[in-house]
Amino acid sequence: IQKQNLSNLRQALDKLHPADIAHILEALPLEDRLIIWGLVKAEQDGEVLLEVSDAVRQTLIEDMDSEELVAAAEQLDADEIADLAPDLPSDVMEDVFQALPMEEREQLRAAMSYSEDAVGALMDFDVITVRGDVRIEVVLRYLRRLGELPDHTDQLFVVDRTEQLQGVLLLNQLLVSDPEATVMEVMARDTVKFLPDDKAEQATHAFERYDLVTAPVISSEGKLLGRVTVNAVIDFMREKADLEARSQAGLSEEEDLFAPIWKSVRNRWAWLAINLVTAFIASRVIGLFENSIEKLVALAALMPIVAGVGGNSGNQTITMIVRAIALGQVNQDSTLKLISKEIGVGIVNGIVWGSVVGLFTYAIYRNMQLGLVMALAMLLNLLLAAFVGVLIPLTRKKFGRDPALGSSVLITAVTDSGGFFIFLGLATLFLL
Amino acid sequence: IQKQNLSNLRQALDKLHPADIAHILEALPLEDRLIIWGLVKAEQDGEVLLEVSDAVRQTLIEDMDSEELVAAAEQLDADEIADLAPDLPSDVMEDVFQALPMEEREQLRAAMSYSEDAVGALMDFDVITVRGDVRIEVVLRYLRRLGELPDHTDQLFVVDRTEQLQGVLLLNQLLVSDPEATVMEVMARDTVKFLPDDKAEQATHAFERYDLVTAPVISSEGKLLGRVTVNAVIDFMREKADLEARSQAGLSEEEDLFAPIWKSVRNRWAWLAINLVTAFIASRVIGLFENSIEKLVALAALMPIVAGVGGNSGNQTITMIVRAIALGQVNQDSTLKLISKEIGVGIVNGIVWGSVVGLFTYAIYRNMQLGLVMALAMLLNLLLAAFVGVLIPLTRKKFGRDPALGSSVLITAVTDSGGFFIFLGLATLFLL
Repeated sequence: IQKQNLSNLRQALDKLHPADIAHILEALPLEDRLIIWGLVKAEQDGEVLLEVSDAVRQTLIEDMDSEELVAAAEQLDADEIADLAPDLPSDVMEDVFQALPMEEREQLRAAMSYSEDAVGALMDFDVITVRGDVRIEVVLRYLRRLGELPDHTDQLFVVDRTEQLQGVLLLNQLLVSDPEATVMEVMARDTVKFLPDDKAEQATHAFERYDLVTAPVISSEGKLLGRVTVNAVIDFMREKADLEARSQAGLSEEEDLFAPIWKSVRNRWAWLAINLVTAFIASRVIGLFENSIEKLVALAALMPIVAGVGGNSGNQTITMIVRAIALGQVNQDSTLKLISKEIGVGIVNGIVWGSVVGLFTYAIYRNMQLGLVMALAMLLNLLLAAFVGVLIPLTRKKFGRDPALGSSVLITAVTDSGGFFIFLGLATLFLL
Repeated sequence: IQKQNLSNLRQALDKLHPADIAHILEALPLEDRLIIWGLVKAEQDGEVLLEVSDAVRQTLIEDMDSEELVAAAEQLDADEIADLAPDLPSDVMEDVFQALPMEEREQLRAAMSYSEDAVGALMDFDVITVRGDVRIEVVLRYLRRLGELPDHTDQLFVVDRTEQLQGVLLLNQLLVSDPEATVMEVMARDTVKFLPDDKAEQATHAFERYDLVTAPVISSEGKLLGRVTVNAVIDFMREKADLEARSQAGLSEEEDLFAPIWKSVRNRWAWLAINLVTAFIASRVIGLFENSIEKLVALAALMPIVAGVGGNSGNQTITMIVRAIALGQVNQDSTLKLISKEIGVGIVNGIVWGSVVGLFTYAIYRNMQLGLVMALAMLLNLLLAAFVGVLIPLTRKKFGRDPALGSSVLITAVTDSGGFFIFLGLATLFLL
């Protein structure tokens, strides 16, 4: 019966899209995952490996021998092999490389040379080129002879003898043009194009703004190198969004949901360590004021309020600014405007919430002065949060770093230590 | 000279894509923004309004009179007007509605009836339909007569007399097919399609997985209603990612970078208030132990470490789980596995980091028992964080709520109050 089930399962898998198989594998615990992986048709191995997440891919690759890996890689295009390359053992890559035809070897070498966040890394080589001086009718005949067009072909690329890109011929345009017209007459010259070293992030903005399906990639001399498709852009967007969500929470890399515990611990330890250091610092700030707390123990109960609300408010500011930077809305002129606006918000919030916590404090401890100190500390910590919340991402950007990375941990560190210092300092000055 | 400059500026604006104009407007402070907005050609007003963010759109609409608004809306398609509708005054909508031809009125009514996160809200009506029994050659002639195809047309929709969708004819297929073949012979029957009430989120997954450019939307009876394009999907993804980033930070809605201070305050107050309530609760938990703190003031300095590291670790867990839920990787079977894995990670982290803070505590306060209590409290709070970090998003999902919304605030509330209670409680039991 077991065997019968497996053979049914195998048949069901054969009918699935590689992306669906990948999805199933990701949702399975390791044992079950490897059983299913063994049932997947060898012809689909390459595509499935491309589709799964990095963490899951590693578990699958560990389960395959060199021969299987070479066979899987050989089913893929050069740009796809380049995506897998970092996860493949070097002897497998060597074999794959040797087995490729000359042209694809060059493409693979090129694709592997670009950094992960460059347009080159999103590029594929499935371009159809035509000459500008032929007639539309000839192009239509040529396409029919090809028998099949690459996925996402929404335009043909018009090049001259030296492969210089001269324009693009949209299929939509091709279909409605007079068959007697030449390509040159109907092609669009003014088109969005990228260099392979352009930032992938910029390409995604262009795809979003101009609603592109594909766009050509050219060398600095204007030679057509390949194209970027909207699905590569979507995958990049998704990965980037995941990366941001993870790095805000302090996860170093993508984590297989069913990873062994020690792997998860390794993935999470770096940020926990940073967090521990900032917590130690905050703790020592409090340590400075142990005398004051001994005299007025209410301070210990109240201080987390000042720190917590400051941290929340600082996170609001930093999220706004990081997003504005990502959208390219922040420039030299606007920095001062932004700081003064956030300071303004901080003042209003400080007065409103400061009054609330001041009254709360008075209601509980029946100590007017303590209430006033609490209110003033709230106000000052909210101002600190506003100021640093604008400054952290802008400074990181100035030094070419990712403005989002760890921003939440940083702002919380400042508003914690700062909040404790402000509140306990004021209390020591005015109450004791 | 001022006038000369403005006229130069106007000419420069005329050459820009509406999306680029929108981008410029978003990056400008209100005053400058309205000056530029006045210079934009009336024919582009509608497109620009579509492209800007909700917050900026409001500032632009407030600057226009009814006539201008009606004129701007009338340049748009029904599905685009539906996108603007929530921001337009009702008398303007009334006028726009009256001015539309019958068919588009119906489309507008339909488009406005879908909820914001349904496929219907992403749908447009720019479909080209053909009959299954005509020959490819006839289709090619038909397209040429149309003179222009809608953006993103990568396939034609094959329908029968009653508008039932029978299949799709990819342009890529059309171009390589024998002109004598019939549409029926070359069309694909087995295609991804959506109902207008399907979740938009699911449609984005399908576009990602199957690398779609467009997909048909059909009624429950199989009638073709419209299509979804990849650019609508990308916009939706971007908006959703923004929404998540904002709601994690506690911003209620999209905020114009240069919004007046009182608007920003209003946008941020709700989450600050929630945060204040949780901070008050944590404060009262500490208040319970004021006697203990009075006797051993080191407790006040140490307690934020327990709470802070617990919060960080809980955020790591919750981020993992929220992402796994979004990707559909979590089911009944895996819940127990996930909890036990996160508990395992919590135990390892608790032992490692608990030892570190225990030693740190001993080094500073020369109090062995205090160090042990600190280590134990760390371990227990990390376990609490793991348990609640899995439970919060799973519970929210069970009740049909967004698992991500406010998850960070919630887990921090639990690990703060819980951490204080565990640490101060243990200290009271064992040290005093």
